[in-house]
Amino acid sequence: MKPINVGLLGIGTVGGGTYSVLKRNAEEIARRAGRPIQVSVVADRDVEQTRRLTDGNCRVTDDPFAVVADPEVDIVVELIGGDDVAKQLVLQAVANGKHVVTANKALLAKHGNEIFAAAQKKGVMVAFEAAVAGGIPIIKALREGLTANRIEWIAGIINGTTNFILSEMRDKGLSFTAVLKEAQRLGYAEADPTFDIEGVDAAHKLSIMSAIAFGNSMSFERAYVEGISTLDAADIRYAEQLGYRIKLLGITKRTAEGVELRVHPTLIPTRRLIANVEGAMNAVLVKGDAVGATLYYGKGAGAEPTASAVIADLVDVTRMHTADPEHRVPHLAFQPDAMVDLAILPMAEVVTSYYLRLRVEDRTGVLADVTRILADHDISIDAMIQREPGDDEQQTDIIMLTHQTRERNIDAAIVGIEALAAVQGKIIRLRLEQLL
Amino acid sequence: MKPINVGLLGIGTVGGGTYSVLKRNAEEIARRAGRPIQVSVVADRDVEQTRRLTDGNCRVTDDPFAVVADPEVDIVVELIGGDDVAKQLVLQAVANGKHVVTANKALLAKHGNEIFAAAQKKGVMVAFEAAVAGGIPIIKALREGLTANRIEWIAGIINGTTNFILSEMRDKGLSFTAVLKEAQRLGYAEADPTFDIEGVDAAHKLSIMSAIAFGNSMSFERAYVEGISTLDAADIRYAEQLGYRIKLLGITKRTAEGVELRVHPTLIPTRRLIANVEGAMNAVLVKGDAVGATLYYGKGAGAEPTASAVIADLVDVTRMHTADPEHRVPHLAFQPDAMVDLAILPMAEVVTSYYLRLRVEDRTGVLADVTRILADHDISIDAMIQREPGDDEQQTDIIMLTHQTRERNIDAAIVGIEALAAVQGKIIRLRLEQLL
Repeated sequence: MKPINVGLLGIGTVGGGTYSVLKRNAEEIARRAGRPIQVSVVADRDVEQTRRLTDGNCRVTDDPFAVVADPEVDIVVELIGGDDVAKQLVLQAVANGKHVVTANKALLAKHGNEIFAAAQKKGVMVAFEAAVAGGIPIIKALREGLTANRIEWIAGIINGTTNFILSEMRDKGLSFTAVLKEAQRLGYAEADPTFDIEGVDAAHKLSIMSAIAFGNSMSFERAYVEGISTLDAADIRYAEQLGYRIKLLGITKRTAEGVELRVHPTLIPTRRLIANVEGAMNAVLVKGDAVGATLYYGKGAGAEPTASAVIADLVDVTRMHTADPEHRVPHLAFQPDAMVDLAILPMAEVVTSYYLRLRVEDRTGVLADVTRILADHDISIDAMIQREPGDDEQQTDIIMLTHQTRERNIDAAIVGIEALAAVQGKIIRLRLEQLL
Repeated sequence: MKPINVGLLGIGTVGGGTYSVLKRNAEEIARRAGRPIQVSVVADRDVEQTRRLTDGNCRVTDDPFAVVADPEVDIVVELIGGDDVAKQLVLQAVANGKHVVTANKALLAKHGNEIFAAAQKKGVMVAFEAAVAGGIPIIKALREGLTANRIEWIAGIINGTTNFILSEMRDKGLSFTAVLKEAQRLGYAEADPTFDIEGVDAAHKLSIMSAIAFGNSMSFERAYVEGISTLDAADIRYAEQLGYRIKLLGITKRTAEGVELRVHPTLIPTRRLIANVEGAMNAVLVKGDAVGATLYYGKGAGAEPTASAVIADLVDVTRMHTADPEHRVPHLAFQPDAMVDLAILPMAEVVTSYYLRLRVEDRTGVLADVTRILADHDISIDAMIQREPGDDEQQTDIIMLTHQTRERNIDAAIVGIEALAAVQGKIIRLRLEQLL
């Protein structure tokens, strides 16, 4: 049977993994796909190294634009990253009638609407399993495995760097800064870790999942994004005492008022399976109205786990590329003419529970003042710890968990409490989800 | 767009769930599938009740054979169960050119090879996501999500009844018999629970996953099957002290000598995520050479979770039914002409670790005799507890964990140890897996 020819753009970490897994498992992959899948050309800036890596088994070029125009190429695999050149390449590949497989979450989160519309028009597939949660087949689960359901919400640990940092902070009682340095030394964090630690990478992935779950257009620019760089080890300890663990979650939820789309550190009950996902691992919890909660867990990054997702897409496209475009699986789970434009809820309108930590003077009446302000804003308290002050201390910490309330109520209450004379400095506020 | 017409065979628990979810989420399902999916006829013995349930919205009959021959029906959903009439119905539906969706694990485990060959020949699809682990899209993950990988092994908690019983035994320190009664009262166990508690149901599901993972023909009749009905609460306690939890696992593994296919109670390290899957929940851990370990978790039974899988298959078939049969996803992940017939390894040849509990007289030299016999069979000890005898006791328990060894070595060593005068009664032997 005639092989499928792949044009590989970029042979760095994921590209190298893809090349090597395609070669190592060639026989088994062909048995599944119905025909061999071979890399026929690779474009990479470093032509010399690419020649060494591919060892004469395929053509090598430094011009990715030649690859997307190459008549021999059936499927273009875009692993260059970024959203400038990558966007041009993907759109040109589509215009040339090529199917595309990409791991580029930033590209899809920002330009997905445009790219999928172009692919739809041209009758080609743009597959992107590798863009979310690495090797975990979560796009397939959402797009095909859970189609019976009205999906209610998704909550995911979808950034390995931050989960590694949070696990180490809890495990070793270290500060964020100390663990970040260690993570950089071990290769779990990049030299410039901003995208990971500030939640942007997670927000890219969350936006993609949200679109597929709700049949909504990509809405990355409207996501609420808060990272972990200001998280204090003390709050991890207090949360633990209260039976909670802190994870950086990407949460998207369908409500009557709009879609929630938010990334932030979140307290979750320690007894939940997802609370026990440690180190650089990823996990996504999906709540459907028929199936209930299902969880998907695995490696969210790395050469071969990501290659696993890239190649799964290659096999999918190979199996289906002769199918009538109208009868393929839709890119975003819903048929293109059945996508909608749901409003994204502003963070102030989100309803959730909260963890508050206050530093207060150790004197009579402070707690009464604080709880009065909360009550005035209709916020009720679910649990509280007041730490006993040390012998020389005049101040102490109060930690409170609230019942569900609207974010703008908490915002207002915090302003009120911070204005009290007995309250020192800023209040630490984290969000809390039961995930039930 | 013309609706897809479903003929539903059986409207019991899962059939009722399927009917009601199809109706409740009709709009969202149509937006995903590209056209409405409607039940046009239901066959059930209880025609009166079926009329009430379907309330004039579709035809009702007590003759399932009329449904599989009905020219209006596009897809037959078989939810009758058993492997006698169900087999005839599925084969006739296929012969009549209908696609089939079934939740019937016993049918596929026993007659899958014949059914898939018939479907292949006729160019129709037989989909069966609901046959394994209820609402968890594990068939899709194995067949499509992990196609890049050489799958090394699968270990699954794939029977909710037994997982509920084991969770309760550990939680409350109760005996198997006591918890079984409670499970029956709560509806978690059937009046005749044999299939569940003896591991047969798990073996059906395991056989299906094994075929898909390795491209092997269905080999249920060669599986090793051991249930939990003789499991003692004492062993759950001792395992816990050693850092392990006991789960009924279905395990299939590819080795150089053949495929392991076995269901038995298994000690697994408590810190593994899968060890913390409690109650009636299911979870499947899959190890691929590229992706590493991925885990899939959710409800393995119940009306709507199972309906979720049935309907996902209906959407899949609807999306793909016009595709050229050669370019559809193969039933068993591998192309029909690329399936192989790998040998199933006899249990005596399986290599794993063991938990042994011996009741011995409390006197000098016993332990030396026992460890000598183990050493003679090349078995080394990894951990040991010897319980201190009570004041009036002449006997005590020794619990040992071994390193990996071949099952026949343990069998021989057990015979030798049981022959020692100081050893009382039978030795309790359980298997242990690290799942790394």
